Amino acid sequence: MVTLTALFKKPEDPEAFDKHYNETHSPLMQKVPGLRKMQVTRFSKMLTPPNATLADQPYLECIMYFDDKDSFKAAMASEENKAAGSDLMSFAGPIVSMCIGTSEDIPL
Amino acid sequence: MVTLTALFKKPEDPEAFDKHYNETHSPLMQKVPGLRKMQVTRFSKMLTPPNATLADQPYLECIMYFDDKDSFKAAMASEENKAAGSDLMSFAGPIVSMCIGTSEDIPL
Repeated sequence: MVTLTALFKKPEDPEAFDKHYNETHSPLMQKVPGLRKMQVTRFSKMLTPPNATLADQPYLECIMYFDDKDSFKAAMASEENKAAGSDLMSFAGPIVSMCIGTSEDIPL
Repeated sequence: MVTLTALFKKPEDPEAFDKHYNETHSPLMQKVPGLRKMQVTRFSKMLTPPNATLADQPYLECIMYFDDKDSFKAAMASEENKAAGSDLMSFAGPIVSMCIGTSEDIPL
């Protein structure tokens, strides 16, 4: 699947961040057309020392899953995504990194 | 679920990295007892400018999923995980960051 990954550094006020994320931002993202799945990871411990990949333990990661490139592009161009993007920048602009990728489950 | 996330910076030799990751490292990880799911994301584009969260576009992320803390602890203590960990350090030590977290799918 095509994925959009948002990785957040620890916010200055985690309680206010969580409240906004859960009550405002997440509901906006959930409306984006073509979004198939949304997975949130909250980090509790970094096992490796700081390095060029991560200087600090991240706070939260959200992965948004889309069927393919076309549905991803349509999602990004939607009004719903513009609203979610504006909201994101309003409360987390300096602490979020966003990357496009492709995700697959490795058979076990 | 309890997750172990490995995030990799772009390796100096991506072709050699991919070969080792796919043919050696991934099969070692797949043997770790209690591993329920393994998801690999390959990044193609970073949308945000470099910041304190990510200075560069990461290359690959692997999320390993476990049922709960107890099965995660047992997995980490297993011989299979020790072998996978040794292998990881041998080819990616300076470019991997690893974090423990909890992951949930957000209902859409």
